[in-house]
Amino acid sequence: SSSDSSSQGKPEADQKQAGYKTVVMTSEDSITKIMLNRPAKKNALTEQMYQEIILALEAASKDDSAITVLTGNGDYYSSGNDLTNFTNIPPDGVEAKAKNSAILLRDFVGSFIDFPKPLVAVVNGPAVGISVTILGLFDLVYATDRATFHTPFSHLGQTPEGCSSYTFPKIMGPAKAAEMLIFGKKLTAGEACAQGLVTEVFPDSTFQKEVWTRLKAYSKLPQNALRISKQIIRSQEKEKLHAINAKESSILQERWLSSECMNAIMNFFSQKAKL
Amino acid sequence: SSSDSSSQGKPEADQKQAGYKTVVMTSEDSITKIMLNRPAKKNALTEQMYQEIILALEAASKDDSAITVLTGNGDYYSSGNDLTNFTNIPPDGVEAKAKNSAILLRDFVGSFIDFPKPLVAVVNGPAVGISVTILGLFDLVYATDRATFHTPFSHLGQTPEGCSSYTFPKIMGPAKAAEMLIFGKKLTAGEACAQGLVTEVFPDSTFQKEVWTRLKAYSKLPQNALRISKQIIRSQEKEKLHAINAKESSILQERWLSSECMNAIMNFFSQKAKL
Amino acid sequence: SSSDSSSQGKPEADQKQAGYKTVVMTSEDSITKIMLNRPAKKNALTEQMYQEIILALEAASKDDSAITVLTGNGDYYSSGNDLTNFTNIPPDGVEAKAKNSAILLRDFVGSFIDFPKPLVAVVNGPAVGISVTILGLFDLVYATDRATFHTPFSHLGQTPEGCSSYTFPKIMGPAKAAEMLIFGKKLTAGEACAQGLVTEVFPDSTFQKEVWTRLKAYSKLPQNALRISKQIIRSQEKEKLHAINAKESSILQERWLSSECMNAIMNFFSQKAKL
Repeated sequence: SSSDSSSQGKPEADQKQAGYKTVVMTSEDSITKIMLNRPAKKNALTEQMYQEIILALEAASKDDSAITVLTGNGDYYSSGNDLTNFTNIPPDGVEAKAKNSAILLRDFVGSFIDFPKPLVAVVNGPAVGISVTILGLFDLVYATDRATFHTPFSHLGQTPEGCSSYTFPKIMGPAKAAEMLIFGKKLTAGEACAQGLVTEVFPDSTFQKEVWTRLKAYSKLPQNALRISKQIIRSQEKEKLHAINAKESSILQERWLSSECMNAIMNFFSQKAKL
Repeated sequence: SSSDSSSQGKPEADQKQAGYKTVVMTSEDSITKIMLNRPAKKNALTEQMYQEIILALEAASKDDSAITVLTGNGDYYSSGNDLTNFTNIPPDGVEAKAKNSAILLRDFVGSFIDFPKPLVAVVNGPAVGISVTILGLFDLVYATDRATFHTPFSHLGQTPEGCSSYTFPKIMGPAKAAEMLIFGKKLTAGEACAQGLVTEVFPDSTFQKEVWTRLKAYSKLPQNALRISKQIIRSQEKEKLHAINAKESSILQERWLSSECMNAIMNFFSQKAKL
Repeated sequence: SSSDSSSQGKPEADQKQAGYKTVVMTSEDSITKIMLNRPAKKNALTEQMYQEIILALEAASKDDSAITVLTGNGDYYSSGNDLTNFTNIPPDGVEAKAKNSAILLRDFVGSFIDFPKPLVAVVNGPAVGISVTILGLFDLVYATDRATFHTPFSHLGQTPEGCSSYTFPKIMGPAKAAEMLIFGKKLTAGEACAQGLVTEVFPDSTFQKEVWTRLKAYSKLPQNALRISKQIIRSQEKEKLHAINAKESSILQERWLSSECMNAIMNFFSQKAKL
C-alpha cells in the first residue's frame, strides 16, 4: 500500500533517531525523513508532535543529509491540528492556553521558514489545516492522487496560518486562494497541482516508488549548490514570512478566545459525540 | 437566460436600496448584491455609475451582510469605461476634465482596495477594461462560459489601471499579463481561469443557479472569521495597492491629454459613426 | 525549417546593423530583432556575445522600433553559458576571472531589467541556463513546441542567476520553481506554458509564420502606450530586481571558486573528451 514506508528501501539500514515518540526520524542515502507516526488518529498534530517536529527539523538542519522529507505514516498525510489541544485547559485559564498555543504555532511555522536545506513534502494521503498551509514553505511537494487539500478555518471560526495568507495568493492568485482559505473549498491533488501548490501528482500504486527514486537521484547532487540555491530563493522573503507568521499567530490567539470560535469547536465535539 | 437575476431566489423578498439610478442594490441571505443596471449600453460605466458604485460599496461595508457581490444586468458584465465620458468637456477645459477623471478613477479603485468583507464578482457575460482589471482585487471571481476578458488599452492610446499592472503579473506571470495588458489579447473564460484570474467557470445554462447556491452556503459561515481572513490576506499589500493605484491614475491623466490617445478615441467615434 | 529567419519577411529589406560578430541585428516593421548567431555551437554564449547583446539592447532601446525581439539562429535558442568561458584563465588568476565574469553577468542581466520597451523572446528551439532564467524579464515569450527549458545549475555546482531566484517562484510558485532551479528538472514547452513562463506554444511547422504575423500586428499599436504600459508594470520591481541580480552574481562569483564547482566543470569536460 501507499503507506508502506519500507518501499523507501531497506529500512533496517536506516539510522533511526532515538528520543521521538510521535514521529519517526530516519536517515539514508543523504535523505533525512521525518514521518508523522500517529496513523490511528490520521496523524492529527498534538502539542507533543509540534514540539518533536521542531526538534527533528533542528536536528535535520545540522546533520549531513542533502534533503529533508516530511511525510505521514498510514493512509493520511495529516488531519491537521488535533482539536483535543483545545480541551486541555491549564489552571491559569483559557487566556494562558491561547497565548501558549500561539507561541507554539509561531515557533513551529518559524522552523519551516528558517529551514536551510531543500525541504520535501511526500503527501501520502489527505492533508488538512496546518499540514496544508505550511506546504507553501516547502521546496518540493509530491502528492499521491489520493491526497486532498482542505483548510476549513472559517467553519471552525478560525483564520489562516502557516504563512498561507501570504504564500497561497502568491502561488495561485487571490481568486483561487480565497476559496480555499476563506471558504474552505477542498482541492483534489490534480487541482492543487494545477494551481502550483503541488509539484507533481503520482498514481497511488506507484507513488512511493517513483518519489523515492527521484529523491535519491536528487540527493546525489552537489550539496552546497542545493543548499545555497534554496537559500537564495527563500532569503528574499524570510523577514516578510516571519512578520506574517507573527501576525497570523497573534490573530489566531484572539480568535481562539472568541465566542464564534468556541461555539464552532464545541459544536464539532458535540457532533462527534453523537456518532 | 443567464441574465435572469430572478434565479437568485425570490427577488420580491430582497431589501432593495433606494436612491441608486444606475445600479440596483439588494440584500438577502446575508449577501448584498450590487448589479450594474445599464443593460442597453452593455453596462458601460458612466461617471454617475462610478460614483454610485463607490457609495454602494461604502453602504455594503457597513451593513450586516457577510458577502458582497458585483454583477451585471443583461448579457454583458460590463463593457468598461463609457467612452462618452471623454466627450463631456467642462468649461474649464480638457486639463480639468483629465484631472477630475483621474481623481474619480482613483477613488473608485480605492473603494475596492479597502473593501473589508469578502468581495465576489459574478461575471455574467463579457467584461472589458476596468471591469476586468479590478478583478484582481476580488476574493472570488465566478464566470459564465460566455464571459470574455478584454483590456484593449494600447489600442486606445491608454495604459492599465485598477492595480492590474501589479495584480495581473502577480497572478499569471508577466508573460501572460503583458499580452493582455500591453497588447490587448482577449481571453476566454477558460483561459482566464487557467491563469488564475477567475476562480471557476460554469456552463451558462446553470451559471446563476450554481453560483448563488454556493454563495448562500458560504454566507452562512461565521462572519467574523470570513471578514478577518479576508483582511489578513489583503492587509499585507493594501499600502502597495494604493500607491500603484495613485501612479496608474496619474499616468492615465497624462495619457488622456496626449495626441496619441485623443486621436485613438476620435478614431473610435468616427468608426462608430460610419456604422 | 523553424530556423529559417527569412520567414520573417523580406530580409533583404532589413536594415542590418554593422559591427556585430556574434549576433545579427535587423530592424523592420517597427521591430528590432537581435538574433544569436552561433548556430554550430547551439548559440552558446561566449563573453563576446554577452557584450554584443548588451550593446545591441542599448541600441534597440534608442532606435525608433516599437518592439525588440531576441531569438536564435539554427535549431537551438541557446545552450546557455559557453563553459569554455571557464577555461580562459587570465594571468592574474582565477579570482580575477571569477570577479570579471560576475561583473559581466550582472551587467548583462541588468540590460534586460532596464530595457524600456516591450521585449519578446522568440524561442526557436531548446533553451538552457541563463537563456532560460532571463525569460522572467521578458514581456512575451513565444515558443516552438520543439523548445525545452533546462537549468542544470546544481549539476555543475552552480546556483541560479538572471533574477530567476525571484521571478520563477513568483511566476510558478516555489514548488514548481525549485524543481527547475534547484534540481535541474527539464520542462517541455507545454509545461513551461502551463506554469506561466511561456506566453504561448506554437507547432514548429508554423511557428515563425504565426509569431511574426502577430508581432507585426502588435508593432502597429500606439508606441508610447506600449512603452509606458511596459514601464508601469516593470518599474514596480526594478530596484528589487537589481538587488537580486547583484546578490545572485556575487554568490556565483564565490561558487565558481569552490572545489564543488571546479570539479563539476572539469568532470563535464573530461566526459566530453571521452566522446
